[in-house]
Amino acid sequence: MTADTARAVPEEHRAEVERLREHLCDLHADLPRWNLVTWTSGNVSARVPGADLMVIKPSGVSYDDLAPADMVVCDLDGRVVEGRRAPSSDTSSHAHVYRARPDVGGVAHTHSPYATAWAARGEAIPCVITAMADEFGGDIPVGPFALIGGDDIGRGVVATLDGHRSPAVLMRGHGVFTVGASARAAVKAAVMCEDVARTVHIARQGGPLERLPQEHIDALHDRYQNVYGQ
Amino acid sequence: MTADTARAVPEEHRAEVERLREHLCDLHADLPRWNLVTWTSGNVSARVPGADLMVIKPSGVSYDDLAPADMVVCDLDGRVVEGRRAPSSDTSSHAHVYRARPDVGGVAHTHSPYATAWAARGEAIPCVITAMADEFGGDIPVGPFALIGGDDIGRGVVATLDGHRSPAVLMRGHGVFTVGASARAAVKAAVMCEDVARTVHIARQGGPLERLPQEHIDALHDRYQNVYGQ
Amino acid sequence: MTADTARAVPEEHRAEVERLREHLCDLHADLPRWNLVTWTSGNVSARVPGADLMVIKPSGVSYDDLAPADMVVCDLDGRVVEGRRAPSSDTSSHAHVYRARPDVGGVAHTHSPYATAWAARGEAIPCVITAMADEFGGDIPVGPFALIGGDDIGRGVVATLDGHRSPAVLMRGHGVFTVGASARAAVKAAVMCEDVARTVHIARQGGPLERLPQEHIDALHDRYQNVYGQ
Amino acid sequence: MTADTARAVPEEHRAEVERLREHLCDLHADLPRWNLVTWTSGNVSARVPGADLMVIKPSGVSYDDLAPADMVVCDLDGRVVEGRRAPSSDTSSHAHVYRARPDVGGVAHTHSPYATAWAARGEAIPCVITAMADEFGGDIPVGPFALIGGDDIGRGVVATLDGHRSPAVLMRGHGVFTVGASARAAVKAAVMCEDVARTVHIARQGGPLERLPQEHIDALHDRYQNVYGQ
Repeated sequence: MTADTARAVPEEHRAEVERLREHLCDLHADLPRWNLVTWTSGNVSARVPGADLMVIKPSGVSYDDLAPADMVVCDLDGRVVEGRRAPSSDTSSHAHVYRARPDVGGVAHTHSPYATAWAARGEAIPCVITAMADEFGGDIPVGPFALIGGDDIGRGVVATLDGHRSPAVLMRGHGVFTVGASARAAVKAAVMCEDVARTVHIARQGGPLERLPQEHIDALHDRYQNVYGQ
Repeated sequence: MTADTARAVPEEHRAEVERLREHLCDLHADLPRWNLVTWTSGNVSARVPGADLMVIKPSGVSYDDLAPADMVVCDLDGRVVEGRRAPSSDTSSHAHVYRARPDVGGVAHTHSPYATAWAARGEAIPCVITAMADEFGGDIPVGPFALIGGDDIGRGVVATLDGHRSPAVLMRGHGVFTVGASARAAVKAAVMCEDVARTVHIARQGGPLERLPQEHIDALHDRYQNVYGQ
Repeated sequence: MTADTARAVPEEHRAEVERLREHLCDLHADLPRWNLVTWTSGNVSARVPGADLMVIKPSGVSYDDLAPADMVVCDLDGRVVEGRRAPSSDTSSHAHVYRARPDVGGVAHTHSPYATAWAARGEAIPCVITAMADEFGGDIPVGPFALIGGDDIGRGVVATLDGHRSPAVLMRGHGVFTVGASARAAVKAAVMCEDVARTVHIARQGGPLERLPQEHIDALHDRYQNVYGQ
Repeated sequence: MTADTARAVPEEHRAEVERLREHLCDLHADLPRWNLVTWTSGNVSARVPGADLMVIKPSGVSYDDLAPADMVVCDLDGRVVEGRRAPSSDTSSHAHVYRARPDVGGVAHTHSPYATAWAARGEAIPCVITAMADEFGGDIPVGPFALIGGDDIGRGVVATLDGHRSPAVLMRGHGVFTVGASARAAVKAAVMCEDVARTVHIARQGGPLERLPQEHIDALHDRYQNVYGQ
């Protein structure tokens, strides 16, 4: 998968692409910091605003070794446009999400342990704490099992998130995909997903749980999305 | 929520306010260090001694980015007196605690995972180890479910702690609030609350537990509060 | 508890006392590093070889703030001989161990979470993995519940370890005490105790366990104590 | 166990041996970083390509104190060829693996907690998530209980891995051994083994699990081994 010289980053998007390469390096550093990834697993991408392009992690490169120049620019069919590295094995799936969801500016994928444990059982995480209502607006749903390589995973992600407020989906037998208006928002969702997956797992070990009432979930989600923050 | 120029920090409290801004920055750094917070969750406030003022974390700001100048000064009705940032969403609840409890000089709030797991089930942590007797003087009680935004949470915190020696309360379906004579004492209680929540959770996974006898709890608490330390 | 000028560190032990103050600072830094302590909990002491003296952590001082000059020199009745700080609340118990066990050169105490969970249930950790046979030579036993302050804890530690190869004891409802030929060996035992407490806890969550056969435990312990290392 | 001057590192392998000493230092630093080892437990070795030699960690030396010069060069009967330290207690077993498996260039051994918990029960880790299919190509198998010192452990490792795609084996009642084309690949397998041991343990706490279908395991393993990465 080498760059096709017929496709290139248009000059008008050059500055933004360079900025995203650096920004993605910083965001990838958040994944090990929050204990979401092991060795080279996990990846984050960002859409290049106004272009049919995305920037994504290279395949199988250690987090310690990631430099901005390693990030790969692809078109929204997942073909490499610019990059000295082969892109993530999940590139076609990220690309599918960007094609299907114009509101999405960033995608993250991890095998974070507690969320992946729910995914292994194919069980949605029930919305039993306010932190889940805030960020996910309800349960974190489960998507279908899909093989890596093509865009099957991306199709499963998009189909599952349709009709949910959650920016996170647990792909059955696999791990977590999250979306956001920006790559940073997608990483935040991945971090929060693991946090609530852990808390709810621990809670349930001690006894049965009850979902928060729907009107409370609605009120909390509305406030967190519209009032919280600066 | 911008500062009302009609309300301002009186000159006599200026030095203390500046000291508390710095001190709160240091204390907030303790929260991720002890694994009590995820992303921007959690907050600490301090009463300004001798004034009807408190200093509190801004809303939704990353721990990495917190500087003393970001801390927000509010009155004890939760209105901003000085600050370039919007204050924590929990400001009205912190303010309520300071109004109702003149002995309280600091308040902390986290969603630390093991304590929040007990809160999700609405189950008090039983006092089965000496470290709990030392710091909490008995069980860590559960307060009511309450929505964020107003002072409902603060009212629940105050009502629940009444009649308990514990400086920590598990707010049902939400997380932990702690109080202390100082902000540092409140943070210490939050750190210890997560520690005992984890230990007692693990202990109970292996079999049934027995509370320490009340006279031992009393003796341990008295000693820790009055003899321990420098 | 200030130093009695009638008791003082004899000049012949001065150099060793200063060395132990520094050494204990380094060893205390191992406790948070291995996640054995929370806030100010936990303490380590060392016997001054050839003297009826020990050096111990001051009471209730943060690990970040510990300097060699903070360490307190006590006699083996637990009375302060030299120090600007009040000694650990566990001083009398450490002193009892040194009086009763001339082979012991160091004592450590923690509330490390997995080991304390076994202690909360009053359940010995069964010797089901080779790492336990190596370091502990069998089960890690449970000692009686005892109140802090006097030497009751120390008496329980000594009585329980009598007849066991284990350098660690789980004090019921409290936490871990370990002994060693040196303070470093005691800290090592505390680190290993938490490690095996965690592994055996996790193992048992998945199903029943069987103790290693006694002849294998004996062979492993003998080899680790006499052949392993430099 | 001092070096036999009759055996020495041939001059033609000198540069590679020095490179491996440094490389092994770096790889050993990965073990505590990924929380696989406690105190001095765990070890990694590398075959010297084209020679009947291996380089291995010294016995019982702290990870903080490991320098390239501490690494020990042994022949493939486990006898020291060059080194100022006694080699790991597992040296004979590493040597056996290199003798029996010419394709193996590196061996790693840990007592990482979740994997050792499966080993304590003598239970294989079932292949229920794609990350396991990727790296291990199926279940992670269990090998026999064997005593340390001779090459019994090595024989058990080789016999168990025969007929499995997994580069990791859980030695009953003991811990993890992994092999790889290089020492780095063996360390990667040890890191991934603990990661999946933890995730599958957590998953099963919440309910029964199903293995991935064999054709999916085959497809994932083939892709990860042959397409993934640079």
